[in-house]
Amino acid sequence: MIETAMRRAVAESAHARGSSSPNPPVGAVILDADGMVVGVGHTQPPGGPHAEVMALRAAGDAALGGTAVVTLEPCNHTGRTGPCAQALIDAGVAAVHYAVTDPNPTASGGAQTLLDAGVEVTAGVLASVVEAGPLRAWLFRQRRGRPMVTVKVASTLDGRIAAPDRTSRWITGPQAREHAHGERAAVDAIVVGTGTAITDDPSLTARRPDGSLYPHQPTRVVMGRRDVPAGARLRSGENGFLQVRSHDPRDVLEALPDALRVIVEGGPRIVGAFLAAGLADEVQVYLAPTLLGGGAASVDDGCVHTLTDAHRFERGAVEVLGDDLLVVLHPRRD
Amino acid sequence: MIETAMRRAVAESAHARGSSSPNPPVGAVILDADGMVVGVGHTQPPGGPHAEVMALRAAGDAALGGTAVVTLEPCNHTGRTGPCAQALIDAGVAAVHYAVTDPNPTASGGAQTLLDAGVEVTAGVLASVVEAGPLRAWLFRQRRGRPMVTVKVASTLDGRIAAPDRTSRWITGPQAREHAHGERAAVDAIVVGTGTAITDDPSLTARRPDGSLYPHQPTRVVMGRRDVPAGARLRSGENGFLQVRSHDPRDVLEALPDALRVIVEGGPRIVGAFLAAGLADEVQVYLAPTLLGGGAASVDDGCVHTLTDAHRFERGAVEVLGDDLLVVLHPRRD
Ligand SMILES: NC(=O)c1ccc[n+]([C@@H]2O[C@H](COP(=O)([O-])OP(=O)(O)OC[C@H]3O[C@@H](n4cnc5c(N)ncnc54)[C@H](OP(=O)(O)O)[C@@H]3O)[C@@H](O)[C@H]2O)c1
Ligand SMILES: NC(=O)c1ccc[n+]([C@@H]2O[C@H](COP(=O)([O-])OP(=O)(O)OC[C@H]3O[C@@H](n4cnc5c(N)ncnc54)[C@H](OP(=O)(O)O)[C@@H]3O)[C@@H](O)[C@H]2O)c1
Repeated sequence: MIETAMRRAVAESAHARGSSSPNPPVGAVILDADGMVVGVGHTQPPGGPHAEVMALRAAGDAALGGTAVVTLEPCNHTGRTGPCAQALIDAGVAAVHYAVTDPNPTASGGAQTLLDAGVEVTAGVLASVVEAGPLRAWLFRQRRGRPMVTVKVASTLDGRIAAPDRTSRWITGPQAREHAHGERAAVDAIVVGTGTAITDDPSLTARRPDGSLYPHQPTRVVMGRRDVPAGARLRSGENGFLQVRSHDPRDVLEALPDALRVIVEGGPRIVGAFLAAGLADEVQVYLAPTLLGGGAASVDDGCVHTLTDAHRFERGAVEVLGDDLLVVLHPRRD
Repeated sequence: MIETAMRRAVAESAHARGSSSPNPPVGAVILDADGMVVGVGHTQPPGGPHAEVMALRAAGDAALGGTAVVTLEPCNHTGRTGPCAQALIDAGVAAVHYAVTDPNPTASGGAQTLLDAGVEVTAGVLASVVEAGPLRAWLFRQRRGRPMVTVKVASTLDGRIAAPDRTSRWITGPQAREHAHGERAAVDAIVVGTGTAITDDPSLTARRPDGSLYPHQPTRVVMGRRDVPAGARLRSGENGFLQVRSHDPRDVLEALPDALRVIVEGGPRIVGAFLAAGLADEVQVYLAPTLLGGGAASVDDGCVHTLTDAHRFERGAVEVLGDDLLVVLHPRRD
């Protein structure tokens, strides 16, 4: 019952990805005294209520004597919002189960506050599932002090992202594009080079197949020294725009102090620069069942000379997306 | 029972791939009157016995009143060997089940001969399984008048087959290489360009992981005008060597009148030439979980200009081979 509720909390927390930053995207489920789900909630954008408070609001009086199931240890400090541990005590919750202990010293201590108030507390429920889920990028940032970087490439099976005449629409099919837009909707920022910004004039928004915008839109970041035209599409709309006039990927990440996860979408030299800097924490390669035989390659790392310079990864999931494949890569453990 | 025996016959026929050419690689199973397997056989190299005769020899007297299960209609003509239909009649087999009717007018008629002798005959058993199995290339050749062409590529996920300094050993891992050698052992010929022959000096043999040679070795074919050095490794050993001094893939296939299946192993321009000529009946792409960021691309088709010129395929099986993937492509039906 608790594990089922935790899976529900993880699924709920996915709605907070991108929009909760710099706060963690947390999910919470309230069960009443009989174990029925009476409230579900996820972290609201900064300044708004945390997941526990959203779930308690939905539960109302039914929380009394019930159980809270939360992906992260309830916070203990009064920031822009009151502490969640106190909110759970005030609601009369009898037990709290959470997955991951808060590594952040200012927010942690929630478990102790709950125990001191006589609430039963269980930590570590489905911890590995939760750590690999929506909380992953926030945990990464706590540990490493920078956002998690996903490098995305979409190419033919011979690694081409454009034909010799530079046509590139569309190499991958609608399912792959839909997946990629879903990823955009879950991150803080998309990074492209000035080359892509100027040549393709992309809007870099996160759109559904019908063209409508997702509620959360990532900040659009352009990396490079040339000016991005005043009328460029990626300057339009409400989501942020930022240019980092540098060739160093570290400068891009430093310019995004609140970001938990960033997608690097190219072009080839930007991808190469992140790889060469060791700043690819995940690579997503979308592959169309097509051989082109000419045109630009997906990755251009000017520093690579011999085969031992290759960027080697561990293969993660392989997903079928219509006619295309998505191959996910992770850094090697050795 | 008959279907189980047919699957056994298909598995047995795999041993004849490559070595039976230009004859079909057939498999046969003899069941005794109680339905027990008493003989299994596959087509021997040209001049040797066919599958039915091999299986009958193994069965001996147990074939009397039994059943023969064969992947192809038993032959009816006396070529270098006697007709198999007669051999089955002489052995006293009561019933024959086969999958595919022989499309070859000189060999066909076996079913009628069996019926005339009072043998019960069933055609079409697991026909689609058999047609997709070891008989596939032979059936292809009967219909299209040329060998089936498999184009093989082994690259990084960004489509590189070598680093900028031309180092290329090894991009894929041991399981992928083992798989590729197994494929070589099942075909009539391997085609490479003079570039690969001269630069890499490959032996192009089919080897097991321990380095020993498979019993069947494909003919090594080099395509291009430059001379292949007298001391080149691919001239050594007993398996054939052939140079086709042309840039037209059709000339290569015409130089192999007995071949059922040919693997094109590169380099990039040879792969591009077969693709551009519409002569890729299957593509095997081995992909290492590596991004190189420089070096030669796996396919070089000098004629491709814009994205609509791309060679589009249907995705077939995706196989995990250790750290690598094998993605198989088939021509699109439209
Ligand atoms: N299929 C896909 O997944 C995909 C995705 C994106 C783009 N594309 C294609 O990629 C093509 C654009 O490629 P591109 O190479 O011109 O553009 P790019 O990689 O987007 O941008 C290259 C430019 O970025 C700047 N830059 C910033 N940091 C750099 C670094 N570390 N190293 C080198 N340059 C750096 C430089 O310009 P400054 O002089 O301004 O500094 C450089 O000229 C387009 O045709 C587009 O269609 C494909
Ligand atoms: N990873 C892999 O799967 C793999 C497999 C094979 C090779 N490779 C690599 O590929 C590299 C060799 O590439 P490459 O391009 O030099 O060699 P290539 O493609 O093997 O040979 C090119 C040469 O073949 C001849 N040729 C025959 N038909 C042709 C046609 N239709 N179009 C163009 N040329 C034709 C030409 O030489 P003539 O002047 O003699 O006619 C041409 O220079 C090597 O570094 C090797 O390691 C990798």
